[in-house]
Amino acid sequence: MADLLNGFVRSDMCGDFTAKDEGRQVTVMGFAAKTRNLGNLIFIDLRDRTGLLQIAFDQSKNAGLFDKAASVKSEYVIAVKGVVQLRTGKNVNASMKTGEVEILASEIKILSQAETPPFFIVDDISTNEALRLKYRYLDLRRPCLQNLIVLRDKITRAARGYLSENGFLDIETPFLGKSTPEGARDYLVPSRIHNGAFYALPQSPQLYKQLLMIAGFDRYYQIARCFRDEDLRANRQPEFTQIDLEMSFVEKDEDVMQVAEGLIKRIFAECKGIEFNEPFRRMTWKEAMERFGSDKPDTRFGMELKDITDLVKDCGFGVFASAAVKGSVRGITVKGGAAFTRKEIDSFADFVKDYGAKGLAYASLKEQAVSSFFKFMSEEEINSIRERMGAEQGDLMLFVADAKNKVVFDSLGALRCHIAKKQNLIPDVYDILWVTDFPLLEYSDEDGRYYAMHHPFTMPNPDDLAYVDLPEKLGEIRALAYDLVINGQEAGGGSIRIHDRDIQKKMFTLLGMSEEVIKERFGFFVDAFNYGAPPHGGLAFGLDRLVMLLGGADNIKDVIAFPKVQNASCLMTGAPDGVDAVQLEELGISVKKDG
Amino acid sequence: MADLLNGFVRSDMCGDFTAKDEGRQVTVMGFAAKTRNLGNLIFIDLRDRTGLLQIAFDQSKNAGLFDKAASVKSEYVIAVKGVVQLRTGKNVNASMKTGEVEILASEIKILSQAETPPFFIVDDISTNEALRLKYRYLDLRRPCLQNLIVLRDKITRAARGYLSENGFLDIETPFLGKSTPEGARDYLVPSRIHNGAFYALPQSPQLYKQLLMIAGFDRYYQIARCFRDEDLRANRQPEFTQIDLEMSFVEKDEDVMQVAEGLIKRIFAECKGIEFNEPFRRMTWKEAMERFGSDKPDTRFGMELKDITDLVKDCGFGVFASAAVKGSVRGITVKGGAAFTRKEIDSFADFVKDYGAKGLAYASLKEQAVSSFFKFMSEEEINSIRERMGAEQGDLMLFVADAKNKVVFDSLGALRCHIAKKQNLIPDVYDILWVTDFPLLEYSDEDGRYYAMHHPFTMPNPDDLAYVDLPEKLGEIRALAYDLVINGQEAGGGSIRIHDRDIQKKMFTLLGMSEEVIKERFGFFVDAFNYGAPPHGGLAFGLDRLVMLLGGADNIKDVIAFPKVQNASCLMTGAPDGVDAVQLEELGISVKKDG
Repeated sequence: MADLLNGFVRSDMCGDFTAKDEGRQVTVMGFAAKTRNLGNLIFIDLRDRTGLLQIAFDQSKNAGLFDKAASVKSEYVIAVKGVVQLRTGKNVNASMKTGEVEILASEIKILSQAETPPFFIVDDISTNEALRLKYRYLDLRRPCLQNLIVLRDKITRAARGYLSENGFLDIETPFLGKSTPEGARDYLVPSRIHNGAFYALPQSPQLYKQLLMIAGFDRYYQIARCFRDEDLRANRQPEFTQIDLEMSFVEKDEDVMQVAEGLIKRIFAECKGIEFNEPFRRMTWKEAMERFGSDKPDTRFGMELKDITDLVKDCGFGVFASAAVKGSVRGITVKGGAAFTRKEIDSFADFVKDYGAKGLAYASLKEQAVSSFFKFMSEEEINSIRERMGAEQGDLMLFVADAKNKVVFDSLGALRCHIAKKQNLIPDVYDILWVTDFPLLEYSDEDGRYYAMHHPFTMPNPDDLAYVDLPEKLGEIRALAYDLVINGQEAGGGSIRIHDRDIQKKMFTLLGMSEEVIKERFGFFVDAFNYGAPPHGGLAFGLDRLVMLLGGADNIKDVIAFPKVQNASCLMTGAPDGVDAVQLEELGISVKKDG
Repeated sequence: MADLLNGFVRSDMCGDFTAKDEGRQVTVMGFAAKTRNLGNLIFIDLRDRTGLLQIAFDQSKNAGLFDKAASVKSEYVIAVKGVVQLRTGKNVNASMKTGEVEILASEIKILSQAETPPFFIVDDISTNEALRLKYRYLDLRRPCLQNLIVLRDKITRAARGYLSENGFLDIETPFLGKSTPEGARDYLVPSRIHNGAFYALPQSPQLYKQLLMIAGFDRYYQIARCFRDEDLRANRQPEFTQIDLEMSFVEKDEDVMQVAEGLIKRIFAECKGIEFNEPFRRMTWKEAMERFGSDKPDTRFGMELKDITDLVKDCGFGVFASAAVKGSVRGITVKGGAAFTRKEIDSFADFVKDYGAKGLAYASLKEQAVSSFFKFMSEEEINSIRERMGAEQGDLMLFVADAKNKVVFDSLGALRCHIAKKQNLIPDVYDILWVTDFPLLEYSDEDGRYYAMHHPFTMPNPDDLAYVDLPEKLGEIRALAYDLVINGQEAGGGSIRIHDRDIQKKMFTLLGMSEEVIKERFGFFVDAFNYGAPPHGGLAFGLDRLVMLLGGADNIKDVIAFPKVQNASCLMTGAPDGVDAVQLEELGISVKKDG
């Protein structure tokens, strides 16, 4: 039977002790991280969420206590009374935060025994992820994961503090909402009272927060769980969290960006001690695509894209010449890249195939240039390309040519990051910028219609409003939309919203919705604009992403206490799983036998 | 077309102006709450979430501006520049927070026009609730509702501040979880990837927060949305919010109660300016039931229950005598209640029927006593009852007799509150107390088994642990459970948890679960106790209830931005509703035709 605390009251957390505490009588509690029995001395490293603390048991001083301490194994939960004493000489452990001191124990309580855990509770671990996730409560004892969860709390506190000071109210919006099938797939919740009807879990609180502006709440925020039933890619979770905000009486992208920028600065200052004194850079979407091939450019290194379309449109290399007619030919120059082997260059060609590129043309400027296309070109053409590319002896030029600019941008944008990682070109700094002036609409060849690049509630740039009625100009309309990009990752994004009923209906129409469909899906929302709607805009930051960026984690599961795996299941609880027939009966649904 | 802000920047919120602002050039924005056109003067009451502000337009000073202002109707959204001027004499409006001043307008922008809303945007409204909920974004413009949402934000801020200062980490737990069918019905979410399997939305984060303690996070909190698919009673919502907390290294109910008490004191101090200096009263469950007939006693007034079982067990009134054998006979004395008519007394008898009482015996001590049972009793018996009841000339005694004590308590507990309201006996104060020592188990005659009164994770009182193996004593085991009661309502509750695998399994067994069922439903949880579990306990406060109590609201819908109605639907969005056949196909479920 385990001991009771029986009046023991914790005086300190383990990680807080320093030499200044010498001589204090203290009571500490935690998990036995490591035990060493030297025969007449036992050392237990006691762990709580603040750190490790060495506890010493001296047989010569208290044999009964010593024997009890000898029974303690890894992960036992114990409480210890004792006195703080300085460690001396080689016993000082400089690699441990509390390494200058230890507790000489005078009493111990064994509060809970523990079997040998299925893996060691240490940061540096090679145990496979599935086993760790099954025993997530043990995995979470590892200090590296605990620190990320502590950081997450700290980030949300900083965010809440800033937003509250700036007049934003924390307002909860429903989880059991209406299905609005635009964008990703909703998770559905069958209704028991209304059999055959379903709620949808929110992909974001978008409509609700806009309605809160129409309701006059002026400034809203919420740290909101959102849901997307998508096939999970790496670093996606079916449920994820956004720092979501919306504000009234704004009409320019800068109005929201400045408030959001203050939020990010506050988070970095409070949680990392990093002060950004200058405004974040602004870059238009067009510039980001053309220079970095991405709407979330990593600008911590160069290797920028160059457009050689004009140089190759009449050249003898058919692949380039034909792409130049409707699309483009662009390339990057890898400094010192001539050292890459043919095999490595082939792997780059494979890499860009995932982005739709049909091939990767190259020119390796070794002493004797090796190129897949020089043979089709004149010396003059080759020289003009080298000059445009800024390529010198020892460099590698890589080109993608395609009738679709998107394929060229996506391929090279990803490739430059891939190579930069390989070449260790990326400095360990925070690089933050705003990308602005996104296109409002994006054409899908597949579906033969336009989609909203952000979402259908985004305000077109007033300067481009006239294009709304010109079918051939639709792709050129800029949105009052903005993304914050940190180290090449989208940390958040938002837009000024449409607050005019007619523009909103027009937008829905551009997206191919009939009057009837608009009414059925968004009728209540469009109606709200009839009763006075302040101009408004907002933004959402991905909290999971922010914690990863600030905490240096590269796996989203590490910043979520109980994450799901790629097939959206929880390895600890076994969710999702079967339910009683009676429950399905009440819901009026049945499971298809060979579903 | 509406005006653009075009560089207008708000300088102040409407409700903040005082005489000190005289002469300032300001820019304000909001909704036109009321307009009055006096021919040469127009007054618009401008409303934002902070209050109302009078704007004046003087025709003699700017006729163009005046004409534009004349076009403004109720609920138009406008921005105004002007100068603050003092109102004088009878123009001062003492009933308005900003009634000493007004803005003399020099510019106006009409940012959004508005149709006549379907009801007036005022606090005092008789419009039916369904219409208001359909246009919730208009209903929410009413200052009384805005103030409750603002209060809600303030309460959560106070709670977060206190909990953070006391070492609690805000940790998010999953919404897509495992179904654990104990207690209320879960909302289910069908899985697309695993057809035929379901997630459940959490009824509370109970298991996750206990696992966080086992993971070593020490102190956790979350302002957590919870879900129950129950037939809604008044003041229940399918989704509701809890201030949920859990802490390690505690083993007495007081350990948690003291921390939670500090939280409630902080909330009252910050949000209502009310300081509670004394510790809250403690009352055992047994005392609460015997004196007030309720485990959430309203102790703001007397009319306490008295037990007369011993006095009537041999009396000539069969109803009393037979109830006295296994159950009890108890009553309340209504001071001055002899004034109630026979009809009113009959209505009390009807009232207690809802609580299972078969009848209500009464004795109205008018000049000539009128009683339903005196005729069966001796003078001596009547006198001993009067004495026990403390009843005097002019009072009314009401009695319930039943073989089940629960019926007696429930009936009289509810009746005393009912009569106190009717008699206006309840003072307008906050009356707060802890109810402790709840029974661990509650027997269901219907199901022929015990249920956990709180939940199956609650620790039995160590002094009663021996009863666990004595079937006839099970009902007497006290739990280390506690509820906080404010003004006769349960504001929150919690318990010390079981942290020992064997006790937890024993508890599940007492609840009638086989080894197999325990393993299937709670296997992962019971396993966690094998690897070292600190003693822990926690509590959850109902946030919606707290906002109602502090805000003086008596309808839960008033404290939730977008509430649902009794049939769990949202009148604004129409959720739940039908979904595409394709989606159901992907989920592998079908809706029963005549569901």
